[in-house]
Amino acid sequence: MEKFNVDLQPVGRRVSVPAGESLLSAAQAAGIALIAICGGEGLCQECRVRLISGKLTPLTLVEEDSLEPADLKNGFRLACQASPLSDVKIEIPPESLTASQRLQVDGQEEAVELDPQVIPVEVTLPPPSLADLRDDLSRLREGLVSLDHFTLSIGLPVLVQFSERMRSQSWQGRLAMGRDGQVVSVLPSSLPLFGFAVDVGTTKLAAYLVNLEDGVISGRQGAMNPQIGYGEDVVSRIAYANQGESHRHTLQTRLVETLNNLLADLCAVARVTQGQVVDAVVVGNTAMHHLFAGLSVRQLGQAPYVPALTEAVVLPASQVGLALAPGANVYLPPNIAGYVGADHVSMLLATHAWEMPGVTLALDIGTNTEICLSTGERLLCCSCASGPAFEGAHIQAGMRAAPGAIERVQTIQGSLQLSTIDGQPPVGLCGSGILDVVAELLANGVIDVRGVFHKNAEGVVSTERGGAYLLVPAQKSGHHTDILVTRKDVNEIQLAKAAIRAGVEILLIEAGLKAQDIEHFIVAGAFGTYLYLPSAVRIGMFPDLPHERFHQVGNAAGIGACQMLVSRTRRAMATEILKRMEYIELTTHPQFSDTFVDMMALKRN
Amino acid sequence: MEKFNVDLQPVGRRVSVPAGESLLSAAQAAGIALIAICGGEGLCQECRVRLISGKLTPLTLVEEDSLEPADLKNGFRLACQASPLSDVKIEIPPESLTASQRLQVDGQEEAVELDPQVIPVEVTLPPPSLADLRDDLSRLREGLVSLDHFTLSIGLPVLVQFSERMRSQSWQGRLAMGRDGQVVSVLPSSLPLFGFAVDVGTTKLAAYLVNLEDGVISGRQGAMNPQIGYGEDVVSRIAYANQGESHRHTLQTRLVETLNNLLADLCAVARVTQGQVVDAVVVGNTAMHHLFAGLSVRQLGQAPYVPALTEAVVLPASQVGLALAPGANVYLPPNIAGYVGADHVSMLLATHAWEMPGVTLALDIGTNTEICLSTGERLLCCSCASGPAFEGAHIQAGMRAAPGAIERVQTIQGSLQLSTIDGQPPVGLCGSGILDVVAELLANGVIDVRGVFHKNAEGVVSTERGGAYLLVPAQKSGHHTDILVTRKDVNEIQLAKAAIRAGVEILLIEAGLKAQDIEHFIVAGAFGTYLYLPSAVRIGMFPDLPHERFHQVGNAAGIGACQMLVSRTRRAMATEILKRMEYIELTTHPQFSDTFVDMMALKRN
Repeated sequence: MEKFNVDLQPVGRRVSVPAGESLLSAAQAAGIALIAICGGEGLCQECRVRLISGKLTPLTLVEEDSLEPADLKNGFRLACQASPLSDVKIEIPPESLTASQRLQVDGQEEAVELDPQVIPVEVTLPPPSLADLRDDLSRLREGLVSLDHFTLSIGLPVLVQFSERMRSQSWQGRLAMGRDGQVVSVLPSSLPLFGFAVDVGTTKLAAYLVNLEDGVISGRQGAMNPQIGYGEDVVSRIAYANQGESHRHTLQTRLVETLNNLLADLCAVARVTQGQVVDAVVVGNTAMHHLFAGLSVRQLGQAPYVPALTEAVVLPASQVGLALAPGANVYLPPNIAGYVGADHVSMLLATHAWEMPGVTLALDIGTNTEICLSTGERLLCCSCASGPAFEGAHIQAGMRAAPGAIERVQTIQGSLQLSTIDGQPPVGLCGSGILDVVAELLANGVIDVRGVFHKNAEGVVSTERGGAYLLVPAQKSGHHTDILVTRKDVNEIQLAKAAIRAGVEILLIEAGLKAQDIEHFIVAGAFGTYLYLPSAVRIGMFPDLPHERFHQVGNAAGIGACQMLVSRTRRAMATEILKRMEYIELTTHPQFSDTFVDMMALKRN
Repeated sequence: MEKFNVDLQPVGRRVSVPAGESLLSAAQAAGIALIAICGGEGLCQECRVRLISGKLTPLTLVEEDSLEPADLKNGFRLACQASPLSDVKIEIPPESLTASQRLQVDGQEEAVELDPQVIPVEVTLPPPSLADLRDDLSRLREGLVSLDHFTLSIGLPVLVQFSERMRSQSWQGRLAMGRDGQVVSVLPSSLPLFGFAVDVGTTKLAAYLVNLEDGVISGRQGAMNPQIGYGEDVVSRIAYANQGESHRHTLQTRLVETLNNLLADLCAVARVTQGQVVDAVVVGNTAMHHLFAGLSVRQLGQAPYVPALTEAVVLPASQVGLALAPGANVYLPPNIAGYVGADHVSMLLATHAWEMPGVTLALDIGTNTEICLSTGERLLCCSCASGPAFEGAHIQAGMRAAPGAIERVQTIQGSLQLSTIDGQPPVGLCGSGILDVVAELLANGVIDVRGVFHKNAEGVVSTERGGAYLLVPAQKSGHHTDILVTRKDVNEIQLAKAAIRAGVEILLIEAGLKAQDIEHFIVAGAFGTYLYLPSAVRIGMFPDLPHERFHQVGNAAGIGACQMLVSRTRRAMATEILKRMEYIELTTHPQFSDTFVDMMALKRN
């Protein structure tokens, strides 16, 4: 019987189903719980999914009746009604999932001295009369001179707000003003000012609403990056954007729509109006930065991968479509290079990695892993192509960190114990789980340092493609298929860990240091938070340092963004990091290839 | 039989038709030639008109078949198919007219020393390589430093163009750069730069394409202001805008759409690309200025009528939707007051009225007439509510200056001789025609200085509403109705001329001068160009000065805008005018009422 592959996004799970099976069954086979109150009869219309690529059976009458024309145009279907006619890629919107994915908005916070870019100024002005015919702007300008604000600037959309609000507020109000004299918003007296901080990850978004007057994070919320539907990783997303200006525009607007929704949710909870959100900081890798800002990413897709710009940018929120106060700006911290972005700078700020005494190494593991080495005198960084294995891609039973993902594997009394996210029946392996499995298989002698399976070891089965480890038999998980760890899976982890460790070693070589010199080893980011450090050390992904030298710091990039919202000093530091940073290009480094090959071995070192 | 009034815009002609008559017949009855190749059978679909207000018969099958859904949604109908069911207001788009209205784009030009805000800079840069990983912006910045341009600024949309164009042009190209270092456009080497100048009148638009490198006006084109459909005069348009932000937005976008069409036409003829149009100057009265810039006009509709701003503004063309080069700005010269706008400043610049030695008076007649008196030392100005009579409104047979409008009336051998625009059969009276008629009726003793008809004079007929002069009998014009000049029409002209002359007198009083002291009397604007000076003097609208002191200068505001495109000195002068100008408020001036009443008399003085 013919079978088709169904790629379920943004969860990142792939499943093969026989022709004729509905997308709902496919999702269920993959262990992903779609809302389907009616049991797949097409009555509840809750199982909306969107076709990204491939071919499905024609629309049923039920779908024609229940889906809006705009939804139909955008490729929405009911998962219970549609079956694949080819390999397909499907987007499951968050509202169709019974459980949401785990998102990363937490990080270590610290009190930062308050010095925000936008501050409140209370004004009371005389109203116009036949004896005082000054125009509104002159009236404001002359009123502010008496308050010692001399360099007033005001965009026309804010002047509209000023003309209308001041009249309705009897010529009394609160201006949100930039330190450069720019009026950002006109508000009723004494309403507090807020800022919006965002970490735009290739996969996930973390958004924060910050009170600019006391520095408190009043709300935080995560979402998947909606660009995933147009390419899972940075490279495929750049390729999509390069197909034409409208494509680049689509990526930009879909991202901003989602950010606006996040902001609206945060504001609703905190009872804050849009006019009170007077500043924003957005961090992301260089490609996310460029796509958000509407910059060309063509040059990021071709050697030598130079960014359109590296320096910090302040741009009007309205230019990118972000729904803040009418005169609000967005601050984008500097990028270092095509594959070392503003999110890395933000992480270095939040963790102090760049300015700590002694030797500090900080990294954020992703499809590209950015690594920074601070020697106390020099700052060096590089980016290594570690691949998407730790995001669950290219791993046979891989998935993102969603309910049912195996996130921890331990050997207890000689047998492997699994923990899944939310305690759900196991669906697949997320990054920390696959790292643990490989470390445990190595420790238990199931694989050797080359990653080769010992045929006689317990749990090793032979498949069409060679040896594999049977982690969860199908009958035990309740799903269609066994959860297997294959030779290829192990090899993907070897490639990833070799790339990361080789990057670390090259930076050490450049600085004339050894791994044992590293006093602080800072691991940032979502995967970095959940990974089990002993596993990373056991396979040699991280150097064999005393445990207390490691720091798992969570989403430090997001926290750095919040700090730059409330502190101009932090923004100045970001530019100082850019100026001091030495970028080391690995692809042309004479010792990189040899180091990479050396680091393929699975061993503590 | 029931009759309905049909108000035909933007021509400005009203006609009363029996129920059941089509809009096509109504237009024909009014003497307006719509394209109707098929003779009103609904076959040619050329007679498209748009319903602004009122009720029409339901859509016919012919209309449903031939009009696009978007057109139907916007209220478009076929004039031959639709009949009024109430009094209606109809917009006739230019493409449905067989003849276009006369527009005003000519004015006296002079050579201005070239010193434009945006200039070309040729650059050649080294391409990126693995040995030179600088980002695009740093590459540009460092390349320009060697050319002595230190204060580079570049908006992100221009940086996109830079990243893409420089790669396709082998890192060689021409930058259009503002004097402040702002990059406006990235072009192939040696393409010339152009600017776009516009005079936004309440009724008409005049647009110019100017070569910034030689100062030559390469093209000029006029159009009706599409906002007319939402209110014929400034006051009704402000009222419309104040009904809500979406209304103000509609006025803004409809205006900008038309400007973009004008620009596209000018560019097509001159074979210029949008990227070559690197600067713009827009002038208009304060309300047009505010609506174009997206500013609130609420305060312009209520006493004391203060503008949102008076100072000169530079704003990104993209902010208002003007389709210029990606980084282009629009310069808006200063306004003086709520009813003395940037167009007046521009006129003063182009005519030198503000800086001429001796006593100079300059005025632009419209619904509001702006008057400036320059004494050689002081600059004074005022605005008077002269009403729309000279635009053909409030006059029974009035119309705008379109084909068939009577534009000149002379007494030759004891009888009145009429000239019409384009020599068409007479349809109605435009401003210069009604001024002439009143002057001739006065000279011929048909009316007295109070505007009262002598019942026994030849041509005087009695109507329901009193005496009137039969200018063109219906059987002679071939239209439904006689062209009559009524007592009320004469009174409208009296009110208009009294307002204008009282404004002149108040400025003279303020300066301690007499009318005979005026050495140069400058009459600008469309009506001012076509009016017959002896008629204006005969009824006392203008003082009785020697003929050679009068100067009719055409659309000086448009020419001033062109000059500000190519000369920063002219822009500086505009700000100097704002600073020096004393605005005299007439409504509260102690001598205004008496002077106004004195000036109602129709007599040379």
